[in-house]
Amino acid sequence: MPNERAIESLKGKIRNVPDFPKKGVVFRDLTTLFKDAPAFRLAVDLLAEMCAKRDVDKVVAAESRGFILGSLIADRLGVGFVPVRKPGKLPARTRRIAYALEYGEDALEIHDDALDAGERALVVDDVIATGGTAHAAGALVEKIGGRIAAYAFLVELTALGGREKLAGFDVLSLIRY
Amino acid sequence: MPNERAIESLKGKIRNVPDFPKKGVVFRDLTTLFKDAPAFRLAVDLLAEMCAKRDVDKVVAAESRGFILGSLIADRLGVGFVPVRKPGKLPARTRRIAYALEYGEDALEIHDDALDAGERALVVDDVIATGGTAHAAGALVEKIGGRIAAYAFLVELTALGGREKLAGFDVLSLIRY
Repeated sequence: MPNERAIESLKGKIRNVPDFPKKGVVFRDLTTLFKDAPAFRLAVDLLAEMCAKRDVDKVVAAESRGFILGSLIADRLGVGFVPVRKPGKLPARTRRIAYALEYGEDALEIHDDALDAGERALVVDDVIATGGTAHAAGALVEKIGGRIAAYAFLVELTALGGREKLAGFDVLSLIRY
Repeated sequence: MPNERAIESLKGKIRNVPDFPKKGVVFRDLTTLFKDAPAFRLAVDLLAEMCAKRDVDKVVAAESRGFILGSLIADRLGVGFVPVRKPGKLPARTRRIAYALEYGEDALEIHDDALDAGERALVVDDVIATGGTAHAAGALVEKIGGRIAAYAFLVELTALGGREKLAGFDVLSLIRY
């Protein structure tokens, strides 16, 4: 387990922005952590360490913010990186999934050939809130014949129940609110 | 200089997609390189090595694809990472710049406090085409009081003249078409 002092020091680098994106919500802004070289390094080291025991063939992450930590964790684990993107952005043959948002719906795509059959994907994002994006990314992994090794997040907003949406899978998170 | 054999092996991992996003254009699809662990590692190593001689305080990169290599190069250089995003995505006080696209225009934002006065930013992206996005990201760096250390790209599409758009600055690129 990463020690509590390290976690607290990382929390001290996260900016709390009240009423964003809407009134009553406190947004956990990681940009103040990412711009701080020692904190950025510590966060990536600790998250990569949590993921290191897993048997992972590739890291999968959804745009945009997922790309920041997804590529770093792939690099630390020595595996390939697979982007999941909004419709129309990936140039080759894709599979698509639509998923519900608070208002309306959104969709994500993955390249058909991003994973080989049976490959184990670690799905990474910076924050898990309701879990909708991570769940959609995981569903895309399975649609193209891959398996989920685990889900990993730098920050978990526990009150929003994202972990329950990913029930049955390993869900790793470093910093919890 | 990275040796030509390494560059050729990386080119061999890039997928050429004809007629994307429109007829007559050959899209250089880096997802096939990123998903290949040894090629991904080699590309990041060589790009980071090109950037290592620069005096850099932070890496700045625009969403979405810029985040993939931007965060990695920041990590390799041991500096902080600063995201540039589409309007409305960054939660704190921002500066904005509008820039012309082939049809219409787009805009990008940076947090006001992303750089300290005089800090030297390395602007990173995966591909430089016309240079519009990189130029806008660089302008945002200067708007908030930072300086440009250099621009760095994994791939340069030389026929599109992006380098001229960044005239007066150091422009580093690893793989050229």
